[in-house]
Amino acid sequence: MKPINVGLLGIGTVGGGTYSVLKRNAEEITRRAGRPIQVSIVADRNLERVRQLTGGTCRATDDAYAVVADPDVDIIVELIGGCELARALVLRAIDHGKHVVTANKALLAKHGNEIFAAAQKKGVMVAFEGAVAGGIPIIKALREGLTANRIEWIAGIINGTTNFILSEMRDKGLPFATVLKEAQRLGYAEADPAFDVDGVDAAHKLSIMSAIAFGNSMSFDQAYIEGISQLDAADIRYAEQLGYRIKLLGITKRTADGVELRVHPTLIPAKRLIANVEGAMNAVLVKGDAVGATLYYGKGAGAEPTASAVIADLVDVTRMHTADPEHRVPHLAFQPDAMVDLAILPMADVVTSYYLRLRVDDRPGVLADVTRILADDGISIVAMMQREPGEGEEQTDIIMLTHKTRERNIDAAIGGIEALSAVKGKIIRLRLEELL
Amino acid sequence: MKPINVGLLGIGTVGGGTYSVLKRNAEEITRRAGRPIQVSIVADRNLERVRQLTGGTCRATDDAYAVVADPDVDIIVELIGGCELARALVLRAIDHGKHVVTANKALLAKHGNEIFAAAQKKGVMVAFEGAVAGGIPIIKALREGLTANRIEWIAGIINGTTNFILSEMRDKGLPFATVLKEAQRLGYAEADPAFDVDGVDAAHKLSIMSAIAFGNSMSFDQAYIEGISQLDAADIRYAEQLGYRIKLLGITKRTADGVELRVHPTLIPAKRLIANVEGAMNAVLVKGDAVGATLYYGKGAGAEPTASAVIADLVDVTRMHTADPEHRVPHLAFQPDAMVDLAILPMADVVTSYYLRLRVDDRPGVLADVTRILADDGISIVAMMQREPGEGEEQTDIIMLTHKTRERNIDAAIGGIEALSAVKGKIIRLRLEELL
Repeated sequence: MKPINVGLLGIGTVGGGTYSVLKRNAEEITRRAGRPIQVSIVADRNLERVRQLTGGTCRATDDAYAVVADPDVDIIVELIGGCELARALVLRAIDHGKHVVTANKALLAKHGNEIFAAAQKKGVMVAFEGAVAGGIPIIKALREGLTANRIEWIAGIINGTTNFILSEMRDKGLPFATVLKEAQRLGYAEADPAFDVDGVDAAHKLSIMSAIAFGNSMSFDQAYIEGISQLDAADIRYAEQLGYRIKLLGITKRTADGVELRVHPTLIPAKRLIANVEGAMNAVLVKGDAVGATLYYGKGAGAEPTASAVIADLVDVTRMHTADPEHRVPHLAFQPDAMVDLAILPMADVVTSYYLRLRVDDRPGVLADVTRILADDGISIVAMMQREPGEGEEQTDIIMLTHKTRERNIDAAIGGIEALSAVKGKIIRLRLEELL
Repeated sequence: MKPINVGLLGIGTVGGGTYSVLKRNAEEITRRAGRPIQVSIVADRNLERVRQLTGGTCRATDDAYAVVADPDVDIIVELIGGCELARALVLRAIDHGKHVVTANKALLAKHGNEIFAAAQKKGVMVAFEGAVAGGIPIIKALREGLTANRIEWIAGIINGTTNFILSEMRDKGLPFATVLKEAQRLGYAEADPAFDVDGVDAAHKLSIMSAIAFGNSMSFDQAYIEGISQLDAADIRYAEQLGYRIKLLGITKRTADGVELRVHPTLIPAKRLIANVEGAMNAVLVKGDAVGATLYYGKGAGAEPTASAVIADLVDVTRMHTADPEHRVPHLAFQPDAMVDLAILPMADVVTSYYLRLRVDDRPGVLADVTRILADDGISIVAMMQREPGEGEEQTDIIMLTHKTRERNIDAAIGGIEALSAVKGKIIRLRLEELL
């Protein structure tokens, strides 16, 4: 059969990986897709790099706008990253009636509503498996594999850099700054790590999954985001002693009051499978009302894992590109006219459990004062641990795990406790999820 | 839009679950599928049960043949189980131009080649997500999510009964027979447990995954199958001391000489995520050349988890049922004219690592004799452990882990070692996989 022609925008890490996997596995991919999928033109600023990677076997240009307008191109693969240029190119491609495959999570989290609306209007597909959790087919699982379910919540380790750092902090007992440097040396963290360690990258991916899970519009700008740079190695150790691991989780949950959409360090029971996801790996846990909890695990980044997702999209689009749009899977899992506008719950209204660490004077009555304040705010304690003060030490650490409560309650209680004269400095407060 | 009409064959555990999830989540499913999916007729031997479950809201019959011929039915859902009647009904349904959704692994493992050929000829879909690993969308992941990859191997915990038994044996140090009784009492094992504990059920599922992974025809009759009933709690303990867990794995692997297709108890490193899958849960680890290893985890059985998979298929078929067949995903991932006939490797030719346990006289020279025989057969040792003999005990256990070797070599060596006068009884030989 006639090959399908791909216009590749960007032949950097993921673009290069996509090109080389398409070539290496051409026979196998053709046997699945029913026709060859070939890159017929590449746009990149670095034309020399294009020539090196492709051996001059396909057309090269530094004008991406020419590619999205090229009448010989059936599908545009956008792998240049960034937001503004990518947005303009994707919208232009859609306008030219091209299907689009992208791995650009920032683009979709920020401009997804606009892009999907344009694609819908034009009757083209925008596929984005590579935008979340690299090679793990989590978008497909959510959009197609779990269609029977009312999705209750998703909790994911969806940023490899931060999971690598947290794994190393726990494993070696080292502070954040030291491990970050090591991660940068090993190439697991960027020179400017803010995007990863501050949780923004995870929030992009979470926003996409949340929209698909609940048929909601993309709500990245309302996500609560807290990174790991303030995390103290001591809390990782205390959590461990209590049977918990700390992971940077992206959590989205449907509640009666609205949708939770939050990224933050989270204590989870050490015996949960997802708590044992170590290093730069990703994993997404999805709770559906019929299926229960399912977990999807693999490499969340890198040239070939991401290429795996991009090419899976290419095969899907190849199969469906001449099919009537009604036969296609909707972009965000729900039919466009069946999307809803669920409110995102403010963080103060989120209900979860908490880990608290207090530095207190080691004298009688302190604990009574603290627990009285918690009780007054309706917060009950599940577990408590007090570190034995060292020789001559006059202060000690108290660690508490609470039952579920609303975040505004715990914040009120923390205010009251910090005002006690026996309590020193700020209270460390981390969120805890049982993930059951 | 006009509802799609389902003819449900069998309203037992999974059939009942499917009916009730379709009803409970009707709104959500319709929002995804684009049109309502309704059960319009149910065939079951127990008409009273049909009436109880459906409240008389749909037609009921005890004549399944009438349902597959019913002109008002668009899709047949076969959930009666068993092989002969199911085969006849599915073929008849295909003949009537109906699409079929089934969760019947035995049927597909044994008659899949015939059924898919008939469906192909008639231009109808046969979907079977529920046949493997319950609610985990592993068929979709393999068929669609990983299309970019040359799949190298799959290793799965795909039988919940045996995983529950192995978890309990390890956890409580109890022998197989005791734990089996407990599993039967709890409903995790059937009164006649042979089908599960002998590995046949796992082999059915493995055969289906193998066909999809490699574009090979269904080869269940050539699978090597070994169950867990002979497994000694002592070996679980020794394995643990060496850093391994024993799981009943279904393994299929592409090699230069043919495809491995085998189910047997397997030592795997305790730190692998899949080694920590406990109780009745299922997990499938898939190694692709581009994506690396990905893992899929969830409930592998039960009414609603399996219903989740059945309904996901129903939504897929609903979307595609009027689409041109060329737009559809091929039944076994590869286009029908691109399937191959790869030979299944005889077990004697399989290359893997081994765990050996020998009962030997506690005297000098024994170990030298044993290792000499292994060396002569080209087998090298990775690790060895000797139990300290008890007071007055004249024999002891030696445990060895070997490097990779061909099974015929290890069997030859075992023959030689068992012939040594210092070696008592049969040598316990288990296979070991690093899963990297």
